[in-house]
Amino acid sequence: MQAIVKPGPGPGARLEHVTVPEIGVQDVLVRVRAASICGTDLHIYKWDRWSARRIHPPLVFGHEFCGVVEKIGAEVTAVREGDFVSAEMHVSCGLCYQCRTGQSHICQNVRIIGIDSDGCFADFVKIPQSNIWKIDPAIPVDYAAILDPLGNAVHTVLAGEIAGLSVAITGCGPIGLFSIAVAKACGAGPIFATEPHPYRRGLAEKMGAALVIDPDKTDAVEAVLGATAGMGADVVLEMSGHPRGVRQAFKMLRRGGRISLLGIPSKSVELDLASDVIFKGALVQGISGRRMFQTWYQMQALVKSGALHLEPLITDRIALKDFEKGMDLLLSGNASKVLMYPDGKPQ
Amino acid sequence: MQAIVKPGPGPGARLEHVTVPEIGVQDVLVRVRAASICGTDLHIYKWDRWSARRIHPPLVFGHEFCGVVEKIGAEVTAVREGDFVSAEMHVSCGLCYQCRTGQSHICQNVRIIGIDSDGCFADFVKIPQSNIWKIDPAIPVDYAAILDPLGNAVHTVLAGEIAGLSVAITGCGPIGLFSIAVAKACGAGPIFATEPHPYRRGLAEKMGAALVIDPDKTDAVEAVLGATAGMGADVVLEMSGHPRGVRQAFKMLRRGGRISLLGIPSKSVELDLASDVIFKGALVQGISGRRMFQTWYQMQALVKSGALHLEPLITDRIALKDFEKGMDLLLSGNASKVLMYPDGKPQ
Amino acid sequence: MQAIVKPGPGPGARLEHVTVPEIGVQDVLVRVRAASICGTDLHIYKWDRWSARRIHPPLVFGHEFCGVVEKIGAEVTAVREGDFVSAEMHVSCGLCYQCRTGQSHICQNVRIIGIDSDGCFADFVKIPQSNIWKIDPAIPVDYAAILDPLGNAVHTVLAGEIAGLSVAITGCGPIGLFSIAVAKACGAGPIFATEPHPYRRGLAEKMGAALVIDPDKTDAVEAVLGATAGMGADVVLEMSGHPRGVRQAFKMLRRGGRISLLGIPSKSVELDLASDVIFKGALVQGISGRRMFQTWYQMQALVKSGALHLEPLITDRIALKDFEKGMDLLLSGNASKVLMYPDGKPQ
Amino acid sequence: MQAIVKPGPGPGARLEHVTVPEIGVQDVLVRVRAASICGTDLHIYKWDRWSARRIHPPLVFGHEFCGVVEKIGAEVTAVREGDFVSAEMHVSCGLCYQCRTGQSHICQNVRIIGIDSDGCFADFVKIPQSNIWKIDPAIPVDYAAILDPLGNAVHTVLAGEIAGLSVAITGCGPIGLFSIAVAKACGAGPIFATEPHPYRRGLAEKMGAALVIDPDKTDAVEAVLGATAGMGADVVLEMSGHPRGVRQAFKMLRRGGRISLLGIPSKSVELDLASDVIFKGALVQGISGRRMFQTWYQMQALVKSGALHLEPLITDRIALKDFEKGMDLLLSGNASKVLMYPDGKPQ
Repeated sequence: MQAIVKPGPGPGARLEHVTVPEIGVQDVLVRVRAASICGTDLHIYKWDRWSARRIHPPLVFGHEFCGVVEKIGAEVTAVREGDFVSAEMHVSCGLCYQCRTGQSHICQNVRIIGIDSDGCFADFVKIPQSNIWKIDPAIPVDYAAILDPLGNAVHTVLAGEIAGLSVAITGCGPIGLFSIAVAKACGAGPIFATEPHPYRRGLAEKMGAALVIDPDKTDAVEAVLGATAGMGADVVLEMSGHPRGVRQAFKMLRRGGRISLLGIPSKSVELDLASDVIFKGALVQGISGRRMFQTWYQMQALVKSGALHLEPLITDRIALKDFEKGMDLLLSGNASKVLMYPDGKPQ
Repeated sequence: MQAIVKPGPGPGARLEHVTVPEIGVQDVLVRVRAASICGTDLHIYKWDRWSARRIHPPLVFGHEFCGVVEKIGAEVTAVREGDFVSAEMHVSCGLCYQCRTGQSHICQNVRIIGIDSDGCFADFVKIPQSNIWKIDPAIPVDYAAILDPLGNAVHTVLAGEIAGLSVAITGCGPIGLFSIAVAKACGAGPIFATEPHPYRRGLAEKMGAALVIDPDKTDAVEAVLGATAGMGADVVLEMSGHPRGVRQAFKMLRRGGRISLLGIPSKSVELDLASDVIFKGALVQGISGRRMFQTWYQMQALVKSGALHLEPLITDRIALKDFEKGMDLLLSGNASKVLMYPDGKPQ
Repeated sequence: MQAIVKPGPGPGARLEHVTVPEIGVQDVLVRVRAASICGTDLHIYKWDRWSARRIHPPLVFGHEFCGVVEKIGAEVTAVREGDFVSAEMHVSCGLCYQCRTGQSHICQNVRIIGIDSDGCFADFVKIPQSNIWKIDPAIPVDYAAILDPLGNAVHTVLAGEIAGLSVAITGCGPIGLFSIAVAKACGAGPIFATEPHPYRRGLAEKMGAALVIDPDKTDAVEAVLGATAGMGADVVLEMSGHPRGVRQAFKMLRRGGRISLLGIPSKSVELDLASDVIFKGALVQGISGRRMFQTWYQMQALVKSGALHLEPLITDRIALKDFEKGMDLLLSGNASKVLMYPDGKPQ
Repeated sequence: MQAIVKPGPGPGARLEHVTVPEIGVQDVLVRVRAASICGTDLHIYKWDRWSARRIHPPLVFGHEFCGVVEKIGAEVTAVREGDFVSAEMHVSCGLCYQCRTGQSHICQNVRIIGIDSDGCFADFVKIPQSNIWKIDPAIPVDYAAILDPLGNAVHTVLAGEIAGLSVAITGCGPIGLFSIAVAKACGAGPIFATEPHPYRRGLAEKMGAALVIDPDKTDAVEAVLGATAGMGADVVLEMSGHPRGVRQAFKMLRRGGRISLLGIPSKSVELDLASDVIFKGALVQGISGRRMFQTWYQMQALVKSGALHLEPLITDRIALKDFEKGMDLLLSGNASKVLMYPDGKPQ
């Protein structure tokens, strides 16, 4: 089968012909219909410090996709051949404290398909039954291919009360932009977004943010306080991982508000805990992955309800073999979600 | 001023000329712009058993309204003359356990304006500063007049998680119908509604329920189970107070789901607690009034966001002096919210 | 091996010699050190209507125990031979909605070891790895044998806030009595208990209830209201399943309080939902089993902390072969937990 | 009356004769029985940078006390002359968003008695009815005098689940030490404490911490990880405000755990948000003051239950006129709570 392979340490990747994965009794083999490029894939492609430490080539990477069940192991009952599926790519151990108490998204022994083992940038991908997600056929292929990052947004937005609350989102990468859609669909408003890159600010406006702030030109904290009668936003979603974004996120939160951190800072951040957390009575949440499988159920229901308008975020559709074009688009900053089709045809 | 007065024990009411209320240092005098008739007003008008016990005529009744501040007491700082306002009509004591722990909506010593003292079916109504609610001028008068019952719906819908969940509503009186709108605006779906009266079923369809069931003709429990792959609804909102409605509400709830009870049964109800609550691991909530003032903040934000479509529910607009026509409309069952204007002119 | 067997439909049971269970690759074979008799075992022994419907003899029954790992299947990593263990006997499917959202204690497809398959009243019992619970060796054998019912109490008490709150417990069977100990250990107080049987009332006093009420002689609702300045108890735990107990439980709850239902009524119960749930703003919870495995972690920490004083509740210790004596003791009402030892020697 | 007065900017304080406060219609005049010195009083006494900015002398300071109602204003109904009382000294506005949504402990317009107006280091103190707290006479005077700091501990410990969980407390000032007692009384365990000062470590041991760590000599993070099989503590209470303490607190938290911050860092702290919050799925809470009045109810019930053992923390008892001795004791570090009696006699 064809697959995008990181052949060894160093930048770049290659389209190669590799053998189709063999499945065990508890596994599902999925024929990939569409896959989507994550920021993490870009890191692996560019081969940054994190990749050099974590990735062991050769590796087929990619972890956002949907497809159709091609074959199932002898003990698989969750799906049948022909089912339309996606998958949670965090494979948890099932036996640690977190797994045994409903928090397997922060399993101590997690392995990630597409990072720690071969992923979905290929004609076929192997998924353990425990992680397969059967998709309602009413959901379009293109949406089904981006459930993984949409799930990050759903997890973050729904990690606390959201309806009837004002929301500030710092950073408009794909997950930040998805979060605008999810928050709106869940009754939040008004929604404020900060983002230095003009292309992304344009998308934030299309997604329906009430106020889109360029933090390079405007004091983002002042802007949000000004739009909330000086109170600050009820909920802040930190999606940038940038030190300035993080600090501003805390400053624009109202007393007693919730701030959920998803963007990953590359180093330590200085915080004024006294003013911005303690006296404020703030609730700060670290958000990682998607809740298994609450997030998936919530996400599927939201997509099916028709309340989520995600079209503007699928900015590009290419054949899998043209992956380098997709990487370039994302590196330029002038793209959000890029979909790739193993059979070459956009849906 | 003109006022609708229950002059003494017995059915009916009269339009009378009465003196404008005198206000104390902590009070606000409001010129009523629009008022709305509640089911409770209908009970008082008809003089049922509850009214005979609770109401001490003569009484100006009515408790759903909006208006403009006419005059404020010396110590009032929350509003100014000319402000657009409504009010929470449950006046809590401020000193009991419930009031001192953030639950003043279930105050042990609550008094209700329009039931225990003169209400808003008049040119003017007196409101203590603690209960006044300043309305964003962007909100239309007709919506502002129905914040009280809308608040019941918002309180019920948002008493637990709602986004991405299926919801069954048993009973489509005004609050049941409002709940459809609120649940949709907050990301719930699909929404199922049961209601024997055809006029109300028609409104439920207009509000966007995915499935509207006539429980006189269809097994409502089977219908909801059928629409949820046998699981039952994630959330059930009991809005009928009818014994059959209540029992069906429990039966259509999924294992581990939430059922919120707002409809008031007139007598005891037999429940199969073993199957319908205990083995199911159900969460059952009694819902009363509106949370002071979380519900008001949430409601205002939802209305302002534009996500709530309430127009179909304001079925009639009349002059205050024609209140008997409004009562008749509601008694016929072919109306939902009836607005009355003291100055005679629909907005 | 020796085992207590229900040989066919009808009352009674027999001590028989049966073959040791064969284990699969994911199973654990446990040598039973001590087992304890549950009310459910008594139902099976007496062969009531529920048993006749649910139990398919021949069956080795019993589901409360501890023991030592004798042998493990090839894929078992959670425990090793010689480990001191107990087990959660509700085997969940792992694939239904409830299992996939952290609520496997209310799995749609649950099977119970000792009810749906051979249990622990034997020298050996087979447990799937997913359900094995490794016990801290610091915990005494006799406590380890009653983790299952203690877990019901821990689940119920900790299903909401408990510290600094008054608690009323209706019904002092073993789980009600355990709940007194757990509530005290978790900072609750004062604790009120109702129970018609004098032996159990004596145990409730030993467990440290501040007020123990005989509902046959005293108005239990008045007693609890009197002890709480008319407010009612902050938390009510319904452990009787008796119609009067259930109704009183709702009446003795304060406005805004939590009532958790664990006792199983044998038929429908009439409830005054208007007064006792809705206007009260009550939170009602159905409690079933133990949360997997939060309850087990909490329980183990509570036992290890030394704060739980359970000794008075282990009223009898006998050899497994004398099980009929244990059943008789429980049927007389003058016992609480009866421990049975396969090797005949009390620990 | 006698009062401890900060007469003007600068270090020190004086015992002066001043007039008894005049009360308004909503006020309560309390005769002080016992008062206690807070770390904040020490800052005011020493006149640090914070005091110079916040305090406007002349001021009678002090905010921890109990006493007896001497006189009430005409509209006071909450207490009567002769009642045993303490008070919540944070006076909230009642009209801001936080006050109107049950979060008055983080009121936008809060004023603190003893900081922004005359406090309790005097024979009499004036308290608004809204803030008076009637104490059960069963509670001893010495405990009643320290409800304010005990309330900080109760608020922090009970800001999330605690029973059956391991707890690490960084910093053993009085509130840290109270937290050990509260956590134990609420079923937590084991409890780990870190503190560089030997006198305080001794008190932490007396309070029942399972492990008391000197962070100057031992790696506190390693010690807690070692005591929790590498998992980290379920709950961390940061009570030091010290940069090292704060950073270690985050590092010793388990994945998915709760960390509550109460200690006030004097400047910004560098945090590794990626590892210590985000990937960990941590819940971080800022804790300020006491919840009005949930914390007071919980605290009173805990004290009455007899489960709180606070005696070791009341290290010194002096006459009010000897306040300088009390300040010196605290400055030396060899004291925890110092009680002062206006009538000179320890209780």
